Amino acid sequence: MTQRHVINASVSPKGSLETLSQREVQQLSEAGTGLTYTLFRQCALAILNTGAHVDNAKTILEAYKDFEIRIHQQDRGVRLELLNAPADAFVDGEMIASTREMLFSALRDIVYTENELDALSIDLSTSQGISDYVFHLLRNARTLRPGVEPKIVVCWGGHSINTEEYKYTKKVGHELGLRSLDICTGCGPGVMKGPMKGATIAHAKQRIHGGRYLGLTEPGIIAAEAPNPIVNELVILPDIEKRLEAFVRVGHGIIIFPGGAGTAEEFLYLLGILMHPDNEGLPFPVVLTGPKSAAPYLEQLHAFVGATLGEAAQRHYEIIIDDPAEVARQMTQGLKAVKQFRRERNDAFHFNWLLKIDEGFQRPFDPTHANMANLQLSRNLPSHELAANLRRAFSGIVAGNVKDKGIRLIEEHGPYQIRGDAAVMQPLDKLLKAFVAQHRMKLPGGAEYVPCYQVVA
Amino acid sequence: MTQRHVINASVSPKGSLETLSQREVQQLSEAGTGLTYTLFRQCALAILNTGAHVDNAKTILEAYKDFEIRIHQQDRGVRLELLNAPADAFVDGEMIASTREMLFSALRDIVYTENELDALSIDLSTSQGISDYVFHLLRNARTLRPGVEPKIVVCWGGHSINTEEYKYTKKVGHELGLRSLDICTGCGPGVMKGPMKGATIAHAKQRIHGGRYLGLTEPGIIAAEAPNPIVNELVILPDIEKRLEAFVRVGHGIIIFPGGAGTAEEFLYLLGILMHPDNEGLPFPVVLTGPKSAAPYLEQLHAFVGATLGEAAQRHYEIIIDDPAEVARQMTQGLKAVKQFRRERNDAFHFNWLLKIDEGFQRPFDPTHANMANLQLSRNLPSHELAANLRRAFSGIVAGNVKDKGIRLIEEHGPYQIRGDAAVMQPLDKLLKAFVAQHRMKLPGGAEYVPCYQVVA
Amino acid sequence: MTQRHVINASVSPKGSLETLSQREVQQLSEAGTGLTYTLFRQCALAILNTGAHVDNAKTILEAYKDFEIRIHQQDRGVRLELLNAPADAFVDGEMIASTREMLFSALRDIVYTENELDALSIDLSTSQGISDYVFHLLRNARTLRPGVEPKIVVCWGGHSINTEEYKYTKKVGHELGLRSLDICTGCGPGVMKGPMKGATIAHAKQRIHGGRYLGLTEPGIIAAEAPNPIVNELVILPDIEKRLEAFVRVGHGIIIFPGGAGTAEEFLYLLGILMHPDNEGLPFPVVLTGPKSAAPYLEQLHAFVGATLGEAAQRHYEIIIDDPAEVARQMTQGLKAVKQFRRERNDAFHFNWLLKIDEGFQRPFDPTHANMANLQLSRNLPSHELAANLRRAFSGIVAGNVKDKGIRLIEEHGPYQIRGDAAVMQPLDKLLKAFVAQHRMKLPGGAEYVPCYQVVA
Amino acid sequence: MTQRHVINASVSPKGSLETLSQREVQQLSEAGTGLTYTLFRQCALAILNTGAHVDNAKTILEAYKDFEIRIHQQDRGVRLELLNAPADAFVDGEMIASTREMLFSALRDIVYTENELDALSIDLSTSQGISDYVFHLLRNARTLRPGVEPKIVVCWGGHSINTEEYKYTKKVGHELGLRSLDICTGCGPGVMKGPMKGATIAHAKQRIHGGRYLGLTEPGIIAAEAPNPIVNELVILPDIEKRLEAFVRVGHGIIIFPGGAGTAEEFLYLLGILMHPDNEGLPFPVVLTGPKSAAPYLEQLHAFVGATLGEAAQRHYEIIIDDPAEVARQMTQGLKAVKQFRRERNDAFHFNWLLKIDEGFQRPFDPTHANMANLQLSRNLPSHELAANLRRAFSGIVAGNVKDKGIRLIEEHGPYQIRGDAAVMQPLDKLLKAFVAQHRMKLPGGAEYVPCYQVVA
Repeated sequence: MTQRHVINASVSPKGSLETLSQREVQQLSEAGTGLTYTLFRQCALAILNTGAHVDNAKTILEAYKDFEIRIHQQDRGVRLELLNAPADAFVDGEMIASTREMLFSALRDIVYTENELDALSIDLSTSQGISDYVFHLLRNARTLRPGVEPKIVVCWGGHSINTEEYKYTKKVGHELGLRSLDICTGCGPGVMKGPMKGATIAHAKQRIHGGRYLGLTEPGIIAAEAPNPIVNELVILPDIEKRLEAFVRVGHGIIIFPGGAGTAEEFLYLLGILMHPDNEGLPFPVVLTGPKSAAPYLEQLHAFVGATLGEAAQRHYEIIIDDPAEVARQMTQGLKAVKQFRRERNDAFHFNWLLKIDEGFQRPFDPTHANMANLQLSRNLPSHELAANLRRAFSGIVAGNVKDKGIRLIEEHGPYQIRGDAAVMQPLDKLLKAFVAQHRMKLPGGAEYVPCYQVVA
Repeated sequence: MTQRHVINASVSPKGSLETLSQREVQQLSEAGTGLTYTLFRQCALAILNTGAHVDNAKTILEAYKDFEIRIHQQDRGVRLELLNAPADAFVDGEMIASTREMLFSALRDIVYTENELDALSIDLSTSQGISDYVFHLLRNARTLRPGVEPKIVVCWGGHSINTEEYKYTKKVGHELGLRSLDICTGCGPGVMKGPMKGATIAHAKQRIHGGRYLGLTEPGIIAAEAPNPIVNELVILPDIEKRLEAFVRVGHGIIIFPGGAGTAEEFLYLLGILMHPDNEGLPFPVVLTGPKSAAPYLEQLHAFVGATLGEAAQRHYEIIIDDPAEVARQMTQGLKAVKQFRRERNDAFHFNWLLKIDEGFQRPFDPTHANMANLQLSRNLPSHELAANLRRAFSGIVAGNVKDKGIRLIEEHGPYQIRGDAAVMQPLDKLLKAFVAQHRMKLPGGAEYVPCYQVVA
Repeated sequence: MTQRHVINASVSPKGSLETLSQREVQQLSEAGTGLTYTLFRQCALAILNTGAHVDNAKTILEAYKDFEIRIHQQDRGVRLELLNAPADAFVDGEMIASTREMLFSALRDIVYTENELDALSIDLSTSQGISDYVFHLLRNARTLRPGVEPKIVVCWGGHSINTEEYKYTKKVGHELGLRSLDICTGCGPGVMKGPMKGATIAHAKQRIHGGRYLGLTEPGIIAAEAPNPIVNELVILPDIEKRLEAFVRVGHGIIIFPGGAGTAEEFLYLLGILMHPDNEGLPFPVVLTGPKSAAPYLEQLHAFVGATLGEAAQRHYEIIIDDPAEVARQMTQGLKAVKQFRRERNDAFHFNWLLKIDEGFQRPFDPTHANMANLQLSRNLPSHELAANLRRAFSGIVAGNVKDKGIRLIEEHGPYQIRGDAAVMQPLDKLLKAFVAQHRMKLPGGAEYVPCYQVVA
Repeated sequence: MTQRHVINASVSPKGSLETLSQREVQQLSEAGTGLTYTLFRQCALAILNTGAHVDNAKTILEAYKDFEIRIHQQDRGVRLELLNAPADAFVDGEMIASTREMLFSALRDIVYTENELDALSIDLSTSQGISDYVFHLLRNARTLRPGVEPKIVVCWGGHSINTEEYKYTKKVGHELGLRSLDICTGCGPGVMKGPMKGATIAHAKQRIHGGRYLGLTEPGIIAAEAPNPIVNELVILPDIEKRLEAFVRVGHGIIIFPGGAGTAEEFLYLLGILMHPDNEGLPFPVVLTGPKSAAPYLEQLHAFVGATLGEAAQRHYEIIIDDPAEVARQMTQGLKAVKQFRRERNDAFHFNWLLKIDEGFQRPFDPTHANMANLQLSRNLPSHELAANLRRAFSGIVAGNVKDKGIRLIEEHGPYQIRGDAAVMQPLDKLLKAFVAQHRMKLPGGAEYVPCYQVVA
């Protein structure tokens, strides 16, 4: 890896972190050590590296080994001192406003919020407690805006898609933006950026000020999927499970574009929830879409769902090929139903309280080799539970591919073993092989993909 | 007491209370019973009774015996149901916006904040902990605005002053407002209203939008000094000590108008703090002022300070008779020094962290007959401590005059006994007698004032 | 007259006058001489004298004989240099924002607008042309705001009323403001100030930002009725006829408080228009009101209308004694009808195009002794025409009382002779005598009123 | 040409056209015929066709032969009825906000402003009068904003450039936007769009709201260069000379990208003015830039300037190859000098009054065959005058290529004859040939370019 340009700088926050008590500033500066520091440093680096296309947490951490971030106490508030920071985050020596904002969003979510949330007597051992935790974190990040009509469209899909697919996501975002809709993604490149870019231009055309480009990420993934600079609200959830819950509780509809294992994880999570009996009748528009060239991929995914979770699962979404305007029209239609439903049930527009999320989907899954090997993957399970376990399997694969911890586990113990009924294993194997063939597991630098798993029927 | 017009209504909040979690709403509605409820009901009644001139907590509570306030849980947030509420709070059946705002400010401060603040690990047994508590409460009420130059002028003085004095406070407020200054008071009638009214007109003339009329009150006093409707930020602090700390930490300068025991309490509190050695050199503009007719009163107060705390205490303020423009000019001048000092010391503009407040001034004083009788009032004490004890003596008198609890104590046990050195007792007795003679202890309905204390040399 | 404090200063505009072409600035600075200059100087003096209570144009002009105002050309725009200006317009050497605003409003309306309007091919010889002229002048002053619901309440009445009546106008303004209504007056003291002051406080209570306090004046009257500083939009119309047309075209309803000859002029103008057959069915809420003590006055006026214009005229207004809330409720009700009517007829909310104003009411009336003597005042005329002539009679009396030119005419030729049928002359004489007895023709300094007219039956 | 999708619709304005007098609306609706109508229809069609890439006025006019636009009078204002309008201007039946805005900008500038400006006594026979005219038109369009620091960067260059060059303009716009600069272009595609798009994204990153994308066009060119939808302020100047004057008076610096005859015209216009002795010492940053592949083009242009206008002309600009950040840095630097200069000379930031523009550059040039043939193109002329004539030559070529009138003239009379000294003709011929070879005279549909001129030495 070549030498990167670096810069030293000192920045102050703007907004809610400006009024800290002396005690809080002290807590923050003490947090400049230990585990929290490691986490914050990693997120900060990813944010400063914004816009760069790097696919692997390790790579970026190694590229800026000398990067340091120090939290200073001032009577007037907190100040960050950056040493050897990526120069791209600056224009003529001044940090780009969005980058500065995101840096303090990270500080807020990682250091500050965790302290505060610990203090609140939230019981993380209950499903209700976990939902409360997600709610508090989002509220503290000022993500929840009461009284605004449902218009947050979540876009899921791969972070490293081909040019045609990327252009298609921009077009879909453009059509959504023309219809005054906002965009929420995992906040990295690829599908996480395209729709936001398209919507930015469309919002400008429609003279919409205050369009929202909401990015929900997690410490483990942020380095691999550095937040794109369009994001104007960044929230860092502590793990993938809370991040997924945040997506389905603040998003009013979801569009799924082509992607790899991460997208499959998200899709299965969503289906597992929507299939829960308590959620029957609850409107939640879901569209699978892509350009003509992606049709085979989408059909494959559709077939996999049919083969494993059955036809009932397939009824929860619609597939639209190569028609951005139609995607936007369907979504607009679906959001009307959401609005009416929430109004009738007197539910908040800004947080989907009525959506039942089973504890199985909320509990963090630790992708150790043992946990991966022990996943029950059988059609004998209720679809509901099978979806949960398939979600975990894909979650493990994502970790093994791009998350720092997962990569190290694979380096140590070799690929995960995924076991189960042939009726599930065969479609799974087929899908994963297709992902590899279609370069949906692509790594940085164009290196050949070496699977971090073995499917064992 | 004649029958009052009452009304039933249901109101929803606007602002920060709109996004509550289901758990929080539940906590709130459970708070509809017990001690917290009693407190909230009392404050709510005072707020709804806004603008009415009643001088006694008992009176108003008795006038609206049937008043009830119910907190309802809705998926979308909290809703208040009011039964038999004072009709004056409504215009053609709709609650006046400022009243609605204050009602939810009370809910925020009394019910919600207390829960949250309990959860935070703030140690109320330390001076630092108490200051932190005040900071958190003010921040949660969005009172602290970073980056705004020092311009909050606290106005202290009586709630039942004569017409000439009232007009004078309006004129001073007008001159302050013409110079772009904001007003902070105890938020009731009299001196707490006049300066705000004058500043409102002056701000309109200077085309200043967003002028601040900050009212700091406490549950025990709010009924006697119902918030005047100009107040556009209401904060309810839990007791007089935290309220006084809030005044001196958010206010940048203080003007003292004629008043009775409450004003004396505030004045002694302020002098006691400013005389603390740690606060030497810390700029804090203080002006005593009134119309020509109030000159004897101001001189009396000045003499009392000289006789008890000495000449050093007198150097902390300036007396200006009958010259509103000069008061405003002096204050403007003083605020410049405050700004420069904070900038040099890198202290926040929005919270006076550098001001040392001794624990003696922070600890709540419970005005039982025993506590009152045991106050040490001697010139042998350091001026500092003597000021603290004199402050407590006046605090007890205020409680005996207008606070619900104090009134009941006096009804039961007769007047407080205040003992001490003749060198202190004589000036005190003289001052209190003058207060009575000048009707500065006036009660509602024009009833003759019966002292709730006896000064025993 | 004692010596006044004066000050020299230089001020720049804020807003629409900031972008002038070099040619325009030149035109303006050339206007520093001749008739336009005299007019502008007079208005400027009145504005700078704001808040002072002087009842006579001559008095104020003589008090500041040395006052000069120079218009300077700068590349960046226009700048005003003031010499020997009234010191009350400044706070610590800086001009009060509202005064500065009004000064440039005067410049805009007197110098600039007249040039522009002359350039437009508006035909002032037609009724349509005059209305167009009023429209252009108001639009240039940014008074016309499309899409805002009808809520401008015009308040007419005397500029020198007694304290009780003044307090009553404040209360009515307060009730109007509580109901979100805006105030438009002739912009001087008395009735022109009270409702604005009350509404300012009420708007603050209702958290209404951007409440409008619209003042419509004319060069001939501004010195006698200096704009009160609450006015946040000042428009100077060239003469009383265009000013009256502006009132009835931008106002959505009218409240008439006690007043003298000027109020009578306004009232007769309004009745004459509303009685025009073309305006039948056009809703226009009109309320006559005052405190209990003003009841005889209001009944007298009512009787005069009945005696001269008949019962039909009386049906165009309602009389409400001593009930501010009821006045506001009636007005709110009436405005709803106005809104519905305009919506149905597709008429603008911001300009009452559909109101027919006869040319007789639009043509300036020059109150020479000959013109006054020749007024036809007979019940044989159509009510319509009689109203127009009565309006002219009162207009002349106002001129003789307070307008510079009228005062000089009276000084020269003695009182006007007003002639007509006994059936009209007797009620007129009675009304005028009552005005004098009630001090509604009061002059500054409390001098005895010497009538500027003689009623000749 | 294939059938286009069309739509019928009715739209109302938002903003300054909402408050028209009845007379004005009548004038507008009468304008629905004759020459003004033809002009307005043509502009409207171009605006509705926004985003479509068509290179020829005739083509688009023929494609929508049935398009009609009717101006309706309503009491409340003006309303446009569109028949057979291009469907792309609508989203789900509703017109895109920016399109609607531009439509009424066209109405304002073509119909309304012309009436108003005629009425003002502006003398178009003088240089000062023409500048005044441009000033009034821009002010009426609310383009002139006082007090804003110099930051409008004009970008000139071709409307049909290659992909690499287009991407480069986006990058330059992005770097300008990161430095808070605004963009002004001729408002069509290519160079007129790229910098705006880049700046939009950069402004979003820097959290800049209210970034300006100012498009200055003219009726004769708008069809060929339909305004791109990023433009948020559109002004239609009556002819190329006033448009060019608007560019150099509202722009604070100019960047010239690769382009064809139109770009050359703009460049020569600029050089001719900057070389005027009166403008010596007046700072005006000019940068020529392009990607590496455009280096030969830029050098060619540079050489042409040297050969015809001499080295002195070359000192007025800087050439930067393939370095967007450096372009932005140079421009930022240059704007600082502009700001300082204007402040020292007390000139407006919003209009460059001090720039001397010779009448020769202001008078419209009518590109008839006779006028083109008679242009004096000799090095014997002062550089100043030669630049003016070369500007006219290129102006004629642009007309012959893309303007409706020019195209018809060429169809009728064959190519223009351009005559002059060999010392000028040779470099000119060389430059034009290079333009053709580099497809900088490209026509729609990829048709071979047939020159509309002949260079005769």
